[in-house]
Amino acid sequence: MEIKVLRNILDANDQMAEQNRTLLAGKKIMMVNVWASPGAGKTTLMLRTAEALKDKARMAVIEGDVASSIDTVKLMESGVTAIQINTDGGCHLDAGMIHTALLNLPLDELDIIFIENVGNLICPGEFDLGEYKKIIIASTPEGEDKPHKYPLMFTIANACVINKMDLMPYVNFDIDSFTRTVTGMNQGVEMFPISGTRGHGIDKWADWVLKNLVKYRINRA
Amino acid sequence: MEIKVLRNILDANDQMAEQNRTLLAGKKIMMVNVWASPGAGKTTLMLRTAEALKDKARMAVIEGDVASSIDTVKLMESGVTAIQINTDGGCHLDAGMIHTALLNLPLDELDIIFIENVGNLICPGEFDLGEYKKIIIASTPEGEDKPHKYPLMFTIANACVINKMDLMPYVNFDIDSFTRTVTGMNQGVEMFPISGTRGHGIDKWADWVLKNLVKYRINRA
Repeated sequence: MEIKVLRNILDANDQMAEQNRTLLAGKKIMMVNVWASPGAGKTTLMLRTAEALKDKARMAVIEGDVASSIDTVKLMESGVTAIQINTDGGCHLDAGMIHTALLNLPLDELDIIFIENVGNLICPGEFDLGEYKKIIIASTPEGEDKPHKYPLMFTIANACVINKMDLMPYVNFDIDSFTRTVTGMNQGVEMFPISGTRGHGIDKWADWVLKNLVKYRINRA
Repeated sequence: MEIKVLRNILDANDQMAEQNRTLLAGKKIMMVNVWASPGAGKTTLMLRTAEALKDKARMAVIEGDVASSIDTVKLMESGVTAIQINTDGGCHLDAGMIHTALLNLPLDELDIIFIENVGNLICPGEFDLGEYKKIIIASTPEGEDKPHKYPLMFTIANACVINKMDLMPYVNFDIDSFTRTVTGMNQGVEMFPISGTRGHGIDKWADWVLKNLVKYRINRA
């Protein structure tokens, strides 16, 4: 019984995700869905990405949280266009929430929209939001066993950002073992070791984002 | 419609939680539900707690994961009685899963059962498992804003362990601000700053566990 209801919810979600995809294709906006654990560095990556893409692409962030608007305030204070979704207890964003957010963004003035999903390595992976690319951020203090424990997201992500590389001397994180695990379960994934607080590795990551924006627009031309 | 179904699920869960509570009361076993983000240090805390309680109380761990049995292997290799629940994609443990696990543990030889819930700061907070105490582990690299973003668990936990205190010199974590936030939303909560990898702060935490075991048994005598 519960499975049937869940299937109905997912069907409705997929239809709405398709509507989002069509809306964005019309505006030539690439949307990227960003997943991570709580505190892995999603907002810091958004701030660094905005800095790196300045004068190259116009970006906005849709900020998903169970409660509060701390991150949206941070982004807006740095001059990044941002909009907050509060799920009021909900553990993921769905395509309907994103649709409402899209209708409240200045779509004619944007090239890229990042969705900072709710901090959760499980539920958000089940919901297509209409995005072009899916990103997972892992952070070194979390340990290298996370892909074994939360396989879905690591298997379907297009890129995996390894954040908090500056903490490597102080934590038990075997980056070779982690990389082997992720590339073993997901052959197409690209890996980006970075330090969000220090700014290391952001250039390569931003290049990948821009390269994908070009690809996205060629495919839709 | 979805809300009605969710309510039915929660009612069924609560009935099963009550059965767990009765079963454990009969055996005078205290059960503790442990919540945290992925990689915050749940298993390390379990290992340290088992060390500290050796010769004082007989403990077992029910290990919840979306996939894999890495942590159960770790615990068993250290001589800790442990049993694995794999949720196969599910984002939380429910009381029925715990009931099955309880029936597979040597209940006549135990004083305390810890439930290491799925790494997730949202969904597990909704499900009563029949536990006597609820614990949340926060870790310093996650940042001090987590209680604002994931308020439910921080509001209803009986104790909050702050792990990875050894990383304090390298991360942005204001422990005073964090403590003020948590005690502001949850007046009865007890705070335990620890370093799981170094073993700092474990004695006080273990004392609290033992003190609660005594209370639990007096209330049920």
